[in-house]
Order: sequence, then C-alpha cells, then structure tokens
Amino acid sequence: MNDATMSGLWLEDRKLSFRRDLPLPKLEGDEVLIKVIMAGVCSTDLEMVKGYYPFKGVPGHEFVGRVIESSGHPELLGKRVTGDINISCGECERCLNQEPSQCMRRRTLGIFDYPGVFAEFCKLPAKNLTVVPDSVSDVVAVFAEPTAAALRILDQVKVRPSDRVIVVGAGRLGLLIAQVLKNTCCDLKVVVRRPEPAVILAALGINAVYPDEVHGELADIVIEATGSPEGFDLSRSLTRARGTLVLKSTFAGDVRINLSKLVVDEISLIGSRCGNIAAGLRALSGGMVQVGEMIDSVFSLEQGFEAITRAGEPGVLKVLVKP
Amino acid sequence: MNDATMSGLWLEDRKLSFRRDLPLPKLEGDEVLIKVIMAGVCSTDLEMVKGYYPFKGVPGHEFVGRVIESSGHPELLGKRVTGDINISCGECERCLNQEPSQCMRRRTLGIFDYPGVFAEFCKLPAKNLTVVPDSVSDVVAVFAEPTAAALRILDQVKVRPSDRVIVVGAGRLGLLIAQVLKNTCCDLKVVVRRPEPAVILAALGINAVYPDEVHGELADIVIEATGSPEGFDLSRSLTRARGTLVLKSTFAGDVRINLSKLVVDEISLIGSRCGNIAAGLRALSGGMVQVGEMIDSVFSLEQGFEAITRAGEPGVLKVLVKP
Repeated sequence: MNDATMSGLWLEDRKLSFRRDLPLPKLEGDEVLIKVIMAGVCSTDLEMVKGYYPFKGVPGHEFVGRVIESSGHPELLGKRVTGDINISCGECERCLNQEPSQCMRRRTLGIFDYPGVFAEFCKLPAKNLTVVPDSVSDVVAVFAEPTAAALRILDQVKVRPSDRVIVVGAGRLGLLIAQVLKNTCCDLKVVVRRPEPAVILAALGINAVYPDEVHGELADIVIEATGSPEGFDLSRSLTRARGTLVLKSTFAGDVRINLSKLVVDEISLIGSRCGNIAAGLRALSGGMVQVGEMIDSVFSLEQGFEAITRAGEPGVLKVLVKP
Repeated sequence: MNDATMSGLWLEDRKLSFRRDLPLPKLEGDEVLIKVIMAGVCSTDLEMVKGYYPFKGVPGHEFVGRVIESSGHPELLGKRVTGDINISCGECERCLNQEPSQCMRRRTLGIFDYPGVFAEFCKLPAKNLTVVPDSVSDVVAVFAEPTAAALRILDQVKVRPSDRVIVVGAGRLGLLIAQVLKNTCCDLKVVVRRPEPAVILAALGINAVYPDEVHGELADIVIEATGSPEGFDLSRSLTRARGTLVLKSTFAGDVRINLSKLVVDEISLIGSRCGNIAAGLRALSGGMVQVGEMIDSVFSLEQGFEAITRAGEPGVLKVLVKP
C-alpha cells in the first residue's frame, strides 16, 4: 500500500480499466475511510459500463469493508461495515422528511458523483454505515445492499399471506426478491427463463415457472425484475385489475406503455429502489435470505474487466471482486 | 313514441348518425327500462367517435332518467335515477371481491357491448341504479358519473390537508377533480392552458396556474387529467420523489415513458377509473361540487352530431343532450 495511491477499477468514457495509481478517497466532513474486503457486481454496474449512466470514477456500490480511519467516530475504527449507497445532504426537503435515500442533492456510491468500492479503499459518511455482525461472513455481507433493495418492496406494498404474487425474473435481484416474498407466506411464483435459477428456487421451496406456464394468470402483486420491455409487458399482463406492479429494475431507454390500460384496469405502478441496510443484514444473518447458491465466482481487482464481463453473461448470478 | 322503436344516436364504423328506428333496449334479468331525461357528453364519447374504442351501438353513459318499466323492482317505477356504467356478472373473482366495476366479464354502458344513453330510452340492471334526490336538478344529476370518477381518487390515494397537490388539466373532468381535492383542504394548484377555466376556478377559490408558472415545482400528489403525452410529461416532472401520480384520463395510443426514472424516484403511478355514484350525488346535492358554470350548451337528440362536434372544440366544457 502506498500512502497516496491505491489500486482499483476506473470507468471513463465507457472504458473500464485496472489502475494502480488511483488517489485514495479524500475524507470530508463525517466521512470515514474503509478498506474494501469484498465487493459485488450488480446489474447497474453493467449498465454503467455500457454507458447508460454517465459516470467517471471508481464504480461499484455493493461491499463489505473495515473502517481504518475515522476521526469523528473512533468507535467505528476497526469495525467491519457495509453501508447505504446514498450520500445525503441532511438539509433538503426529502432529508428533513426522513427520506435521505431520496435526498434531492444526493450523490451515490460508485454511481453518481462519488467514488465507489471496486478499489482497495472506499469512503462513506459515518451515518451511512451499519456494522456487520460477526455471524455474517464477508461473502454473505456483500449481499446486504441488494437484499435491502429487495426488502424495500415490503416498505412500499402490503403483501398479504393470501395474495397471489408473481416475480418476473430470477437473476441476481430476482432471487433475493423471491426469498423476501416467500417469507410473507404469499402464494408465490417466480418466472424464470433458464433451468439454473429454477433449481436454486426449488431448493428454496419456491415455485419456479416458465413464461408459457403463467399465460393468462392474474396476480394481485407482480414484481418486474428483468429491466427489459418484454419483462415489463409480461409483468403487466399478469397484474390483475386494481393490482400492483412493482418496478424493481431499471430499464435502458424509454418503454412504450399503454397508459389507458393502466387507467381502465386501475393498476398501481410502483417504482422501488434502495432499502434499509440493517434490515438487509438481519435477513442475511437470520437466514431469511440465503445467498450461498448465488455466488458465481470471485475475481481479483486486477481481473476487474473479466469480472464485469462474466457478470454480463446470460444466467450468471453474483460475481464478487476481492481487492 | 312507437312501442318497438325509438330515436337515438347510432355509432357504427366511426360514423355517428341520428336514427328514429332504433330498437328499444330489450330487458333481461334484473334490467329496468329508463326514459332518458338528460345525458352528458364525455371525452370518452369523443374518443369513441374517433374510433379509439371499437363500439357499434348507441353511445353515451352520463345520464339522468326515469324508470318506466321494472318488473322485478316495482319500488323503482317512476323514480328518477342515474347509474353505475359497469354491468357486472356478479360471479367472477372481482365481483366476489366486491369490485363489480372491475368485473372481468363486464359490459359498459354505451362503451362496450351495452347500449348507451344518447337515445329516448336506455336500460341498466336495477342494482346499478341510484335514486336522485329531489333537491338535485336534472342538469346537475347528469354530472353524478364524472363526479364519482373524480371522487374515485380519494378511494385510492390518501390526500392529506398538508399535501401539495397539482391537477394538470382543467377540462370537463379536471374541474370536478379540482373541486373534490379542494375539499380535502390540501395545498392545491390546477394547471390550465386557457383563461376560461381559470375564471371558473378563481370563482371556486381554487388556484389556477399556467404551465410556465409551475416550472420546477414538486408536488406530493399530481393528477393527470389531460390524456395527452405532453400532459403526462408535465405531470411526471411535477411529482416529487416518492410522490404519487394519478392517471385520470385515457390516452390515445401508447406513451413513451422513462421507467427507470419512475424506479429511481420511487414514483407511484395510479390508474383511476369509475367511482361510487351515490358519493357523486352526495357531492352534488351537498354543494361540495358545483357544476353550474360548467354547462356549455344543451342539444336535442336530433342535433347529436352537432353536440359531439361542439364538445370536441377546444375549451368547451359540458355539453348536454336532451331527448
């Protein structure tokens, strides 16, 4: 380790490169310095590399790490932590309304105007951090952020044990969403396109079905977790009148929608983003969400490009990066 | 009046004509025969004439009339009534869930597979009817259906007195929606494009603004009441993160939407359709909704084509048809 520089991945003009000369994150205000132990590749990272988000810097936002510098919060020093990816101002309307993840001036870890975690070191404000219980291993803790995002659905929508729920998409996020919903004891189906996630779901006791097997069915709540226009269309067709359609994935570009049909069927379309990290850790530490079967591979930072490439291959689940 | 035929408007292949030889509605099951006293032209009627809905028959669904034949329900004979436009089966999942307006096998008065009210006579099942209080005049009672549709918003969305609410569009429906929302004591603005509705709104004590006057504002709840892609885009831009956007008008054709923005901002997009007719009548009879300034003109059935044409002119509010 050099005092002033570190190794990490760098994204610029859609080009991802491994560099050894990156500046260490410079701490400001309440921020602490974190040595990254393990990071996860998310579909958003892939979209960023494709240029969907114009970001220049170190990408990556799923991580577990250890606090190595924290002048304002000595109690955090040496702690193993993960964190909320939204860096909030604390002063805007949304922050004052206790909705810091929707801060109107927010920066986002490794996504917008803030250096990310695919590096030896990252930083976050102390208030963003949650200490990881000893019972949660590194490879599991790195799932705290996406698990929190899956749990966010339950912040927004009341899922009753008697509800028919369909999750469309069984990728990285879909498999977490499926487990979160299974715990509500609802009547759950997950639409898959490949046998591999079907096997994982079967082992979890979750009903996996192929698209042609749900043709004509209607669910009270549908979760779109593909981020594709075809996935949206299928999800919409599966949502009953007065039902709820939760959008959990981002889409590249605009999607053509028959808004009149939403009006006539009185559908509630709910956008869903980040969740509570502590809740995500509780789900992982308590076994309510299991991720063992979801880990595809672990790459070194030097192999960052290979990691991203691997994560972009069809059907590949969680790819981890270990600095 | 001829025993077997009646006068009325007939829509076929996008062509609207006045005819004197229409068959009287044939009663089945629980249906009663109603002499139409007054009917109202709705934007949906205009869309139907444009061919947006493929309907062949007597159009029209806003009405007040008098029951003149009712074998199963003698207590309704001679009563002045209006009614719910959804003819439900009583047996499907939605009906059994007490949501008959979303009946999965429904027919819709003058819109889908059921003769409408632009004629001397119409019919409806007895269970669809609500008796109009004597205190409500004919020209007011004809607003029961659209007023109920405006009130439907409050069935679906909790509007708090402290909420900032913006209604985009001040046409026939927008002016009813504005009044319904004013009664919640929320912080209300209505976006208008013409001076005429602004005058009506001002007389009602409602804040009317032009599009350029709301640029950059954010509301907790936005109601889209234009049915145009431009209206949708404006409505979307006015909805705060985690806010609610209610779609109250139907749109001709698909609309291109940035779904990722809905996800990232965690917007709730709520389709809203028909409401409770009795509630609509309560709003009108209690003065909570006033329609006196909204009546543009009254046409005879023979002038049906002129009535529809007039209703389609920019800025024209409610056109009534009197058989």
